[in-house]
Amino acid sequence: MPVARPHASLAALLVSFAGLALGASPAKVTREATPAEPPAAGQAAQQVRDRATAGGSVAWELVESLTTDIGARPVGSPAMERARDWALARLKALGFANVHAEPFTKEHAWVRGAESAAVVAPVARPLAILGLGGSVPTPADGIDAEVVVFSTLEALVAAPSGSLAGRIAVVNQPMTRMQDGDGYGVAVRARATGPSLAAARGAVAFLTRSITTGNARTPHTGALLYADGLPKIPAGALGVADADFLSRLVARGLVPRIHLVLESAEIANAPAWNVVGEIPGRDPQAGVVVIGGHLDSWDPGEGAIDDGAGVAITVAAARLIGELPVKPRRTIRVVAFGSEETGGSGAAYAEAHAGEVAKIVIAGESDLGAGRILRLMLPKVPAEDPLARELAVVLAPLRIFVSADPAKDAGSDVEGLKAAGVPVFEYTQDATQYFDIHHSADDTLDKINRAELEQNVAAWAALLYLVGDSTTSLR
Amino acid sequence: MPVARPHASLAALLVSFAGLALGASPAKVTREATPAEPPAAGQAAQQVRDRATAGGSVAWELVESLTTDIGARPVGSPAMERARDWALARLKALGFANVHAEPFTKEHAWVRGAESAAVVAPVARPLAILGLGGSVPTPADGIDAEVVVFSTLEALVAAPSGSLAGRIAVVNQPMTRMQDGDGYGVAVRARATGPSLAAARGAVAFLTRSITTGNARTPHTGALLYADGLPKIPAGALGVADADFLSRLVARGLVPRIHLVLESAEIANAPAWNVVGEIPGRDPQAGVVVIGGHLDSWDPGEGAIDDGAGVAITVAAARLIGELPVKPRRTIRVVAFGSEETGGSGAAYAEAHAGEVAKIVIAGESDLGAGRILRLMLPKVPAEDPLARELAVVLAPLRIFVSADPAKDAGSDVEGLKAAGVPVFEYTQDATQYFDIHHSADDTLDKINRAELEQNVAAWAALLYLVGDSTTSLR
Repeated sequence: MPVARPHASLAALLVSFAGLALGASPAKVTREATPAEPPAAGQAAQQVRDRATAGGSVAWELVESLTTDIGARPVGSPAMERARDWALARLKALGFANVHAEPFTKEHAWVRGAESAAVVAPVARPLAILGLGGSVPTPADGIDAEVVVFSTLEALVAAPSGSLAGRIAVVNQPMTRMQDGDGYGVAVRARATGPSLAAARGAVAFLTRSITTGNARTPHTGALLYADGLPKIPAGALGVADADFLSRLVARGLVPRIHLVLESAEIANAPAWNVVGEIPGRDPQAGVVVIGGHLDSWDPGEGAIDDGAGVAITVAAARLIGELPVKPRRTIRVVAFGSEETGGSGAAYAEAHAGEVAKIVIAGESDLGAGRILRLMLPKVPAEDPLARELAVVLAPLRIFVSADPAKDAGSDVEGLKAAGVPVFEYTQDATQYFDIHHSADDTLDKINRAELEQNVAAWAALLYLVGDSTTSLR
Repeated sequence: MPVARPHASLAALLVSFAGLALGASPAKVTREATPAEPPAAGQAAQQVRDRATAGGSVAWELVESLTTDIGARPVGSPAMERARDWALARLKALGFANVHAEPFTKEHAWVRGAESAAVVAPVARPLAILGLGGSVPTPADGIDAEVVVFSTLEALVAAPSGSLAGRIAVVNQPMTRMQDGDGYGVAVRARATGPSLAAARGAVAFLTRSITTGNARTPHTGALLYADGLPKIPAGALGVADADFLSRLVARGLVPRIHLVLESAEIANAPAWNVVGEIPGRDPQAGVVVIGGHLDSWDPGEGAIDDGAGVAITVAAARLIGELPVKPRRTIRVVAFGSEETGGSGAAYAEAHAGEVAKIVIAGESDLGAGRILRLMLPKVPAEDPLARELAVVLAPLRIFVSADPAKDAGSDVEGLKAAGVPVFEYTQDATQYFDIHHSADDTLDKINRAELEQNVAAWAALLYLVGDSTTSLR
């Protein structure tokens, strides 16, 4: 850990000697430790890597088709059913084995209705609005109330009980742009927990500045979480400029009044599916590598970066492995998860495969767009392990390094597997622009840079071969 | 932790409700829990923050003077002695109390001598070279040998024993640019451990591509670490273009021959100093907050971003606190550490203050340049603690968020205190450009953006007031 940090002291660096085989010849050690290993594993990994960077994968074609032929595909919608059929047909056409859909039930699916918002006093001005996923509807004729604006969620938390009675609470807290997207986890609390925090203080509705690093007028949706035992109030996201406009009115000592309409409906017990395909390994006893992206998306865009890209990257990477004459020892299983945005598909997968956990050697999800991969985080792997070394060598030309820190998490759809004891890996992507776009009408195909998409496929394919062919236990 | 990650699942977000005081009024809780607290702590924090962002701190003046009036100041040099006197005089002039130097001995200080490198066959071409700190010298007439180029450190590790006999080993592994500088920890292993790894395989000298994210011809130095029991071989850093040139020759099937001169000398038992000043708190029993930067620097530049900036930021932030009519409860102690680059000042400080550890409530170091601060990482602080909330509110206008992850480390000069049980905090800076410059002749004043420097001072000053005035135990 210390060696992976920029401030590492010299003393901490000394530790790294331990893993670096000062005197021995690790090449020889590798050969002895894994006699059944074909010496060509590293070469096969380089081959799929180079084929992907040369444009030889189907990733672009897949995400182009998914965004064009299907488009937005929220769980419970007819589009999601079409997306299931699309995934089944594509996996079969690409030569995957054991292609099937695993059905599960989504207890509460949510459908957006008519939405509008406007300042009605002391001036009249329309506001860019988008309901949060899961929001209860306003009455059909809307809510009319004064707003109270907080510059942070913490300021809302500090508001006394009852102080928001009859008001609409607005949180206008900007999100910090970070390359790895780490600003999101803290910023998203305004969206997820703000509605119930406002309700606990008497508010009749809740609005948040869009959880975004961008400044497009287009608002960003996403799931909210109502706390038990509190009134459920309607909740939406404002455009960045609209939230700032409200703050500027308040700074003038004015009390803006808003008219808010957020219609929506709930579908009880909606059908949902995880779609699965496999590239069988050479050795049926060697276990399974589970990877994937999620097929569902929010409704306003095309589900391009979230997460058409992840489905395309992982399917295309596995397909490159499938095209090789010699497959890796382990089976590569790709899952197109069917309900990530509002939760459920990861838990459904883990539950359906509870009896198989010992067979799953590692899992990972691609769910942070198509930006360039910078770093690989493995499960805790001994530093002297040949797998970590081979990965470092094959990934270096892609400008990806292998972190000395272990992976923390690897996408919410594999959290269930992780909780059951399956090791996970994480590819850290450049997410500098990701949160400008995600969950909004701007999540469209034009935002994907094809060369970056292909760098992702190259990294996934190389990793799949090496991890798939390894005899290292990652547990 | 899950809530601070971009992939956080909804289930993980639910956890955050626990800390968000759904029903209660935390403002009231705060007041009750800390009856002695002046209600103005948050206001004082805002005041110093706004004074800094308005240009009212001495940070720029300090770093301008340190780079102009002193310049590069390696430990053991006459310049470092002048830097000590500069720091003592400045701290006194700025009204700090208890200003003094704490001497310690640097067993091995290192002085660069004449250096040159050139390809002599099959073509003649000069190479940009800079010896690594601590390198043993070549003979005065240099070393003449064939090179073997490795594209990664892992490839060097895989080379069999004896395979480099009589050769110069070159590692040409690029460093991945990351906003938080995380590429450094892995890349720097080539510089730190490469010399002994090469020696273990028979090499007579070692060269690394500069550990940098940039592509300037100027090489980057830094400390190496010889492993016990192996021959110490001379080691240097090449310009990026020079390392690539060698790789291109090798790709043509050629075997480049290099003439290398790296002269240097060692100073045994050099004197060194940590320079200290304090802003006394209102309550002498309330403990001490220890912060600082490091005064020493590498020899080729001016020590501007590494770490004149850190000294300037922390001294200027403490000075803003000192100018307030009402001081925080706790004493603010600033330390200008005297030997960070080759190690020693943090350990010396921790040793000298071993009896005082219980009094030190928290420690932190500014040592990643003057780039904008993005994130605060506290020691493990309960989410419902008012301190974390107040920090979030006062830092939000600076676009800094408070992470839900605890700090991992906080600069190598406070590692000794941390090991002794002192909690540490970390301000994550935008280090996107930092490693283009650090440890090279390009580390000069013009690289510091004044507005970003002042954002740093604002963040440090606000934190110093709130942490300094808090009654929260951070242990």
